[in-house]
Amino acid sequence: VAAQGFAGVSAVTRRSPTRFAADVDPGWTIGGKPNGGYLLAMLGRAAIAAGGHPDVLAASAHYLRAPEPGPVEIEATVLRAGRSAGQARVRMAQDGQDCVEALLTTGRLDPADAPYWSGGVPAPGEYPFADCERVAWELPDGRHVAIMREVDVRLEPPSAGFARGEPSGRGELRGWLALPGGEPFDAVSLLYAVDAFPPATFDVAMSGWVPTFELTAYVRAVPAPGPVRVLQRARLIQGHRVDEACFVWDGDGRLVAQATQLAGIRLVF
Amino acid sequence: VAAQGFAGVSAVTRRSPTRFAADVDPGWTIGGKPNGGYLLAMLGRAAIAAGGHPDVLAASAHYLRAPEPGPVEIEATVLRAGRSAGQARVRMAQDGQDCVEALLTTGRLDPADAPYWSGGVPAPGEYPFADCERVAWELPDGRHVAIMREVDVRLEPPSAGFARGEPSGRGELRGWLALPGGEPFDAVSLLYAVDAFPPATFDVAMSGWVPTFELTAYVRAVPAPGPVRVLQRARLIQGHRVDEACFVWDGDGRLVAQATQLAGIRLVF
Repeated sequence: VAAQGFAGVSAVTRRSPTRFAADVDPGWTIGGKPNGGYLLAMLGRAAIAAGGHPDVLAASAHYLRAPEPGPVEIEATVLRAGRSAGQARVRMAQDGQDCVEALLTTGRLDPADAPYWSGGVPAPGEYPFADCERVAWELPDGRHVAIMREVDVRLEPPSAGFARGEPSGRGELRGWLALPGGEPFDAVSLLYAVDAFPPATFDVAMSGWVPTFELTAYVRAVPAPGPVRVLQRARLIQGHRVDEACFVWDGDGRLVAQATQLAGIRLVF
Repeated sequence: VAAQGFAGVSAVTRRSPTRFAADVDPGWTIGGKPNGGYLLAMLGRAAIAAGGHPDVLAASAHYLRAPEPGPVEIEATVLRAGRSAGQARVRMAQDGQDCVEALLTTGRLDPADAPYWSGGVPAPGEYPFADCERVAWELPDGRHVAIMREVDVRLEPPSAGFARGEPSGRGELRGWLALPGGEPFDAVSLLYAVDAFPPATFDVAMSGWVPTFELTAYVRAVPAPGPVRVLQRARLIQGHRVDEACFVWDGDGRLVAQATQLAGIRLVF
């Protein structure tokens, strides 16, 4: 399975101008549930195929129920087909039950674009890839986090305390992300990158699965080849819900994607 | 018109279980274009009426084309009707043309919820309402910003420089927002509050209209009566696009809503 790479496990096959088939890979799951950014990347491929613009610029997904690994159907409806950008509604279903619905704006990322002003972007991490600690796919209690076997998620040492039961309390995880086989990131796989890290709440308090209700991603630039730097930051934990922000930079230190998500959380007090 | 208040100008009238009629008020516009958060609040009312849960928890809107002031049609489709939360797709059209489509998660905000951890939330502003400067609805060049006559947007003195041609360069506007007649905010009018401030890019460089492509809002708590504090912050301006984050606190200093948006920008160099 890993030999397929991300392009393979997120591929969609056109059945009609608006309908696509895809397979949710069992390797890209956490506790048997597929990663939400991975599913959004599939929807991104369908939006691009249906809409005629090559890149996803913005995507907002609401998660209705998690599909099981296996076949899913995707339907893409073009809402507006503009000259430089367009919008599409894309829906993933399994056995006739809706699983994810998303709205996507597609367009073209101009490789010549440069930041005019970036004063509101946090500083990227400083540790090189080799000095970061890979997140294990085998947990101390014997359970497995399947997706961490597929991708290489590495945490900076100040972010890695939670695995030893020592969260920093900052609610912030910094590190690197590499796809299987060193596959370069593009505007579609960045939709996965913004949801690839463990929940930043692990750096506050341990919890079980943190299911995403809503995920919004903005893709800002075409990344340079190689792993990307990620900052996953929790903001407010309240009423069994948490919002997290994510920033992704390429190896040259350029901000390439951003995201925000609202998720459910059951804290282990 | 102002006598209607926000509840009046954002009201929707049910025509069938899934169809609603509404009127875009000419007062709630900027350069003749309706405010995007105002339109999202209308979609929020339709989602609540169609879905059975009393509050909007999360909303993501993609803006296709701006409707003119006047009648619009709204269609709400329930995607999942859960016991404690549900999701709906809501679409606004005018004269048969789609204008805005949004996905909303509805549920119930528990007034007893308290923050468990809020370490990722920026500090609210410190200036009292009375020490802030109201944004004028008449511009120096004689043009009008209609919506600023309806609502009371007040900027803290360090955020008010742009009106004198002296942006601070921080890309950050802090201040207060009050609805007409002192109407209290609720989970629906907070969908407007997160888009009520001038673009934070005005604190970097002047530009014309900054049209919203995508707006995502999370409502976190029921606000106390009275005006709300707002922080509107720009992050990255690049390739004629900017993303902005927004945080809204009630008068008691409690975070009640958050948002992110991607907008177009044509800078006046």
